[in-house]
Amino acid sequence: MHQYSSLEEWKNAIVAGNRVDLARAITLVESTKEEQLETAAQLLELCAPHAVESQRIGITGVPGVGKSTFIDAFGSKLTETGKKVAVLAVDPSSDISHGSILGDKTRMDKLSANPNAFIRPTASGGSLGGVARKTRETISLCEAAGFDTILIETVGVGQSETAVHSMVDMFVLLVLATAGDELQGIKRGIMEMADVVIINKDDGENASYTKLAKASYHQALHMFPAKESGWTVPVHSCSSTKGNGMDDVLNTVNSFFNHVNVNGWLKKNRSEQNNYWLKAAISEELNHRFYSDASTAKRLEKLQSEVKSGKTSPFAAARELLKNWGYSN
Amino acid sequence: MHQYSSLEEWKNAIVAGNRVDLARAITLVESTKEEQLETAAQLLELCAPHAVESQRIGITGVPGVGKSTFIDAFGSKLTETGKKVAVLAVDPSSDISHGSILGDKTRMDKLSANPNAFIRPTASGGSLGGVARKTRETISLCEAAGFDTILIETVGVGQSETAVHSMVDMFVLLVLATAGDELQGIKRGIMEMADVVIINKDDGENASYTKLAKASYHQALHMFPAKESGWTVPVHSCSSTKGNGMDDVLNTVNSFFNHVNVNGWLKKNRSEQNNYWLKAAISEELNHRFYSDASTAKRLEKLQSEVKSGKTSPFAAARELLKNWGYSN
Repeated sequence: MHQYSSLEEWKNAIVAGNRVDLARAITLVESTKEEQLETAAQLLELCAPHAVESQRIGITGVPGVGKSTFIDAFGSKLTETGKKVAVLAVDPSSDISHGSILGDKTRMDKLSANPNAFIRPTASGGSLGGVARKTRETISLCEAAGFDTILIETVGVGQSETAVHSMVDMFVLLVLATAGDELQGIKRGIMEMADVVIINKDDGENASYTKLAKASYHQALHMFPAKESGWTVPVHSCSSTKGNGMDDVLNTVNSFFNHVNVNGWLKKNRSEQNNYWLKAAISEELNHRFYSDASTAKRLEKLQSEVKSGKTSPFAAARELLKNWGYSN
Repeated sequence: MHQYSSLEEWKNAIVAGNRVDLARAITLVESTKEEQLETAAQLLELCAPHAVESQRIGITGVPGVGKSTFIDAFGSKLTETGKKVAVLAVDPSSDISHGSILGDKTRMDKLSANPNAFIRPTASGGSLGGVARKTRETISLCEAAGFDTILIETVGVGQSETAVHSMVDMFVLLVLATAGDELQGIKRGIMEMADVVIINKDDGENASYTKLAKASYHQALHMFPAKESGWTVPVHSCSSTKGNGMDDVLNTVNSFFNHVNVNGWLKKNRSEQNNYWLKAAISEELNHRFYSDASTAKRLEKLQSEVKSGKTSPFAAARELLKNWGYSN
């Protein structure tokens, strides 16, 4: 519990907006030690009632699209309108905890010096479910500390986009207007998740490319089924370095939240997300216990090779493996 | 075991290609009774070594696209080239077992009278995993009975396409060339799964629509990432009633299997599918046991409402629910 005389005291420091205490609490929820998980759960429960209403926005795009520069510019813009902005990142693929803090903060020089912004590096390592839990709980802590806008950057590898999409209200896809093949390189399913497509690095020189890219994305978006939120996905362009187009982005974000607040989707979606993560966390833990059992691991190896050679069907092997599971241990 | 003196005798009848014995075995694997599951597992193990090499092809498309008529024409064409064709259907959403047998057989009048074809109606009811198991095991039985081409029709509801995609080698998407909005109505992710897009009902009258639709699908397919199999997805058109274009479809199917046989993807994909279903079956059973526990259900209800009201995080609730699970029962 560090230097706090009680969890109550720690909670009060977080709710008062003290960044050092917030950062320490995030480190606590990022721990995987059983004892610390208990303490973290208690602290989270104390903080929960103090969470401010927030807008949770996911930001994705291929490497090189300028995510950090965009967040620096867009986050600064948000603080100018009176918002308090927390920036998080998700990277389930990385084993190096806190590996990208220096890189991120360097590329967000305006925001990192801003008293109304808080930048927290990548929660990484462990399973996707583990990373998701850490990020989801970090969001709660930031909201208890008064941050009303949470920007979550995905690092664009593996399943991180899907995980982030399942914990935000709005999903922003950043793209580039390069010559031809504008849509190449975007991973499966990502375009369908986007609530707005933003063509970044619209710096004047490539205005014709930007125009072409806008038309391509408009047409591509038209092919996807209508969004459950009833929101029509717009395409914008901006320059994160020169600042043009940022007002459009801000207006779109405001329009989106207005739209989903009014029609009730925001509340419904958060409730569904909570239920999703509850079920996902249960399933992950059940599977973890099963696969980490030593005798199961041995039998699994044997049956997997039988399945591979076609001697046993995958379903027969599953039946066989589960026969004695859970009743004896 | 019906009238058989032993499972060995039953197996021999199946391997000899006796349809009545095959149909009875499928009914056995479709059973959900614990005792029958054991017998089914033994029969499947006896049959496994006799499976012929096969081509497993999934066929999907929105209702009204003419899936049954297409299968009737395409399946007949396959038998003309010496193939033995089994037709299955997957419908996890339906509770009425065998509900569509009459409809299917009526709409496949050529194939249902064909001695080299075997039509089995929808395996339905129960969980998606249950339906998947039944279908997957029915495939094995058909292969043991000498059917070297397995056509699996999805009924186009819920998650059936994903399930079918995970148990076939090739995935066929049937579409219509209607005026404009050709791509509307196709569910999320389906287009990405297709190995060939076939514009059905190309009956001459709407040749200009077909041409436009071909261009649209070509462009749309261009936007998806390259397939892991290295196969480039073609767009064809055909008329299932008049027969034109069927040779193109047959050639494409042969080219596909030649391509994935030569580059090793077919074998690799089947091995990965088996591993996927092994893990899926284990996960489904673990979750089933957890959620069907009476005391868990009671605690879950309470915690779900706490999660909904924001009092507890989904991860804290999962931890709480799992605290005593598996060790005491």
